[in-house]
Amino acid sequence: MNGETPSIEYRLLPFDEVQDFVRAVFVAYGYGTEDAAAIADVILRADLYGIESHGIQRLMRYHKAILETKVARVDAVPETVFETPVSAVIDAHDMLGQLAAIRAMRLAINKAKKNDIGMVAVRASNHFGIAGYYTRMAVEEDLLGVCMTNSEPILVPTFARQAMIGSNPIALGMPADPTPFLFDAATCVVPRGKLEVYAKRGTPLPEGWAIDETGAVCTDPQRVIDAILARRGGGILPLGGAGETMSGHKGYGFGLICDLFCSGFSGGPFSNHKKDDSSKANTTHFFMAMDYGLFGGKAEIRSHFSQFLQELRETPRAEGCPRVWIHGEKELESESRLRREGIPANDKTLSELRRIAADLGIRSFPRDPTNH
Amino acid sequence: MNGETPSIEYRLLPFDEVQDFVRAVFVAYGYGTEDAAAIADVILRADLYGIESHGIQRLMRYHKAILETKVARVDAVPETVFETPVSAVIDAHDMLGQLAAIRAMRLAINKAKKNDIGMVAVRASNHFGIAGYYTRMAVEEDLLGVCMTNSEPILVPTFARQAMIGSNPIALGMPADPTPFLFDAATCVVPRGKLEVYAKRGTPLPEGWAIDETGAVCTDPQRVIDAILARRGGGILPLGGAGETMSGHKGYGFGLICDLFCSGFSGGPFSNHKKDDSSKANTTHFFMAMDYGLFGGKAEIRSHFSQFLQELRETPRAEGCPRVWIHGEKELESESRLRREGIPANDKTLSELRRIAADLGIRSFPRDPTNH
Repeated sequence: MNGETPSIEYRLLPFDEVQDFVRAVFVAYGYGTEDAAAIADVILRADLYGIESHGIQRLMRYHKAILETKVARVDAVPETVFETPVSAVIDAHDMLGQLAAIRAMRLAINKAKKNDIGMVAVRASNHFGIAGYYTRMAVEEDLLGVCMTNSEPILVPTFARQAMIGSNPIALGMPADPTPFLFDAATCVVPRGKLEVYAKRGTPLPEGWAIDETGAVCTDPQRVIDAILARRGGGILPLGGAGETMSGHKGYGFGLICDLFCSGFSGGPFSNHKKDDSSKANTTHFFMAMDYGLFGGKAEIRSHFSQFLQELRETPRAEGCPRVWIHGEKELESESRLRREGIPANDKTLSELRRIAADLGIRSFPRDPTNH
Repeated sequence: MNGETPSIEYRLLPFDEVQDFVRAVFVAYGYGTEDAAAIADVILRADLYGIESHGIQRLMRYHKAILETKVARVDAVPETVFETPVSAVIDAHDMLGQLAAIRAMRLAINKAKKNDIGMVAVRASNHFGIAGYYTRMAVEEDLLGVCMTNSEPILVPTFARQAMIGSNPIALGMPADPTPFLFDAATCVVPRGKLEVYAKRGTPLPEGWAIDETGAVCTDPQRVIDAILARRGGGILPLGGAGETMSGHKGYGFGLICDLFCSGFSGGPFSNHKKDDSSKANTTHFFMAMDYGLFGGKAEIRSHFSQFLQELRETPRAEGCPRVWIHGEKELESESRLRREGIPANDKTLSELRRIAADLGIRSFPRDPTNH
């Protein structure tokens, strides 16, 4: 439900051509074609879902992580450092997050198929895109899936004025009919990517999303981003907002829980220490796959849950509201629409794609109509 | 972090005397002394934590559930209807929630001690008090604990105008030093009990907590409670508030997830169907205990996490804010203080205690100073 409504400055890029381009980019970094296709699939899934902040607009950050800061290592070989029949800890040795995450969720799924439950914590990884990609992997195997990741500190604890916790999304997917339940939510009010989108657009933030370094609510996205990057203080408020009146302490707690599962269980640094070593991204993740047959007949459980979802869809609507959604519906509907219509990209993103293509010496996409 | 600041109309009742009284009440209903002590412990833990809404102010509701509506059956014998080495489903056969929950969490703990993980879903139960009571049982065994429960529909899905989901708390406890992390949060902005406290006090609700049957934000607690009871519509907003601007859809999703684990996995009715059969409370719960040694050395994990909690406590404070709390700290500090100072109760609650005592023919507590 993080959809952005593209405004008129957006162009629609044909899906297949963007996919070819993103694959070519990662092949140019040195990845094999299969890995490059997997990475492109995760990145483009975000664009298809309407989550622009985690899609191709983030390619420049991966570009820098691989070529400039080298915090993402193309030659990384992940290592399982602890394992039981239902759990594992993986040291990704600075692998790109998408590849580490796919490997970890596959391990969790295999354990769940064999022993009903699989839980895998990952350390020394990188940004992995949208958490909801990996829970859907479990759902497609008729399993319940959970995925979390920490990230650079951006969430300010209740009554504090400095970011200590990442955007720390918690995703959970559960099979259902006609469509699965696919929940994926940053535990701060909005993810940092959304601030970046507002900054690129030059539009002010809604009040109550972020505070500046003094602790005051701030609607200037760039000021908040700059303060966070410079570690001057400020950041994004937890789900529930400032203080306790609207229960911001609950969002703070969910964010803390995410860091417990990702960093606490993987042994990697918590969000506030991710950047202590500038040679590493030090991102941590957590994955779980569970066979919900642990609680009885799967067909019965699935049908019971699907009925509930249908009743939620049919809840009387508030005046002026078109629809009551189930989590994942917007994304799945956006996916089928944008596969046909194309992926929206704004001018800033397009110029970044051109720079990446130039850096790598590959054919630029989209073809530049103005030749500048 | 649900602490209520007692105002001047509250009296402090000595803890031991309240405890004796509550035990005597449940013995008078027909419970054995051990069960009565266990029930009293759960109820009084809420008062000690400062969560008045779930403490002795709720005794009258249990009283009616046992003697009038008879939805809570003193002679209930719970039944395990499905079981694996790491999971179980219990039909509580209308047992009082506290007893069903203690039994279920003990089963989860035993499974976790034997097989690292124990998950127990419960159906046909009753209100069980505070979810955080049961996660602390796991924490005291050096396990991670999770507990959820559904409840009567009170949470209005995003863009809807009728309550479909319960207050649906999600609690998670994790051992740490010097004190454990004890998170316990309703997934609506505030639990219904808090509306009842405001109604008893006659004070208006903060804006953004609840909507009336028309879908408009409403600050009259009694109007919202009445509308919910009459099923006219209205209810409490999810964590994150109305619409999607402050991410109310995330709170809605967490509430939905709670119902999936409690009702979906136990086979009991989802929150919106709890009251279809007026002869039953039909409350569902979920419990998990997990040995966090599944991810490596426990001492190391515990110390790593405790260090993070300490750094959170030391986060620079926002101006005018006295302290950055860890979830559970307020409650544990309140517990030690109120054990000494006494449990706060207002006049309405005191008169309810007197009526209960009169109904049961037991010595009234507290001794009525005005003899009216």
